[in-house]
Amino acid sequence: MSGAVITGMIADMARWQGGARERLQAAALKRFAEQGFDGTTVAEIAETAGLTERTFFRYFADKREVIFQGQQEFERVFLAAIEEADGAGAPMAIVAKSLDAAALFFPDERRAWSRARQAVIDADPSLRERELLKLSSLAAAMSTALRARGIDVTAATLAAESGVAVFRVAFANWIAEVEHRSLAECLRAAFAELRALLPPA
Amino acid sequence: MSGAVITGMIADMARWQGGARERLQAAALKRFAEQGFDGTTVAEIAETAGLTERTFFRYFADKREVIFQGQQEFERVFLAAIEEADGAGAPMAIVAKSLDAAALFFPDERRAWSRARQAVIDADPSLRERELLKLSSLAAAMSTALRARGIDVTAATLAAESGVAVFRVAFANWIAEVEHRSLAECLRAAFAELRALLPPA
Repeated sequence: MSGAVITGMIADMARWQGGARERLQAAALKRFAEQGFDGTTVAEIAETAGLTERTFFRYFADKREVIFQGQQEFERVFLAAIEEADGAGAPMAIVAKSLDAAALFFPDERRAWSRARQAVIDADPSLRERELLKLSSLAAAMSTALRARGIDVTAATLAAESGVAVFRVAFANWIAEVEHRSLAECLRAAFAELRALLPPA
Repeated sequence: MSGAVITGMIADMARWQGGARERLQAAALKRFAEQGFDGTTVAEIAETAGLTERTFFRYFADKREVIFQGQQEFERVFLAAIEEADGAGAPMAIVAKSLDAAALFFPDERRAWSRARQAVIDADPSLRERELLKLSSLAAAMSTALRARGIDVTAATLAAESGVAVFRVAFANWIAEVEHRSLAECLRAAFAELRALLPPA
């Protein structure tokens, strides 16, 4: 992805968003994309956003938090849907509802941000590790929430882990350059593909 | 799991095994179980094994390597089976062959060691992270090996990630206190369960 494309996307995001937090996020992504995550200081991010370092630290504990802020809220969306699903649904149906709820967290207006964020993560090994651990922790929490509904541990783990795999694949498709489908549509397609991969014995 | 049970298992392992490496591994697991991974020094491990620290460092770079040694060999077993699978098999059939090959890596004689090792990992957050990253890295490598066979990226990722989820569940069952089935049998059961969780649309 070229620098010009990223700058354009970030300008779109800034127009769509607006406050100090959003300006700092856009400035951070721009700098990370240009000079790497490790090679960027908080001072540079603040300068690019036309704000002070002090303002930066009012919103973020450190530069890594620009990338990972909202993680708890993200996880809560999945878990709340599992807790609130009606009746004694099949484990995978509950997981599908959970992923649909999470898709609402990523409207198409967020696609440019998510794409730029992922490019930064992909370029840095420590951010990649952090992102993998975030998704593993999500799968573990989903499994626990399924077990709290009386689903046995094997089914809960398999449903949660496969669900997160479906989410990862759908998300990667959603942020691909050529993709125009919504995340919800990408999720349905990925679920259908997993089903097709596992024909009845 | 009580200390006495672990000591008994480790005594079995020591009888089954025998050389300096195996004595160091058994001694390390005993100490880790008794006083935690963080609270154990290489000197204590060597002393428990009746060997010198110098001998320890001939076999292991550090105490963490006692737990994670053999990781590359472990990954190679999965990947070799994917590379060598006959003809244009379906992605999930290739993954199933890969897991069967890996099961040969864990004969029932290794169950006590694997169980004690897992207890040490479960008790330490940094070891848990390392183990999760190991399995994520395995899934990524399996996905790459599937793509090298001409399988598209979505199918490759879904098959590899679900396959690793099946392996994790089967492995957890295999090392459970009450389990007597082989890992290959636990794998077949977990695959059947995943299939049952994803009924045709």
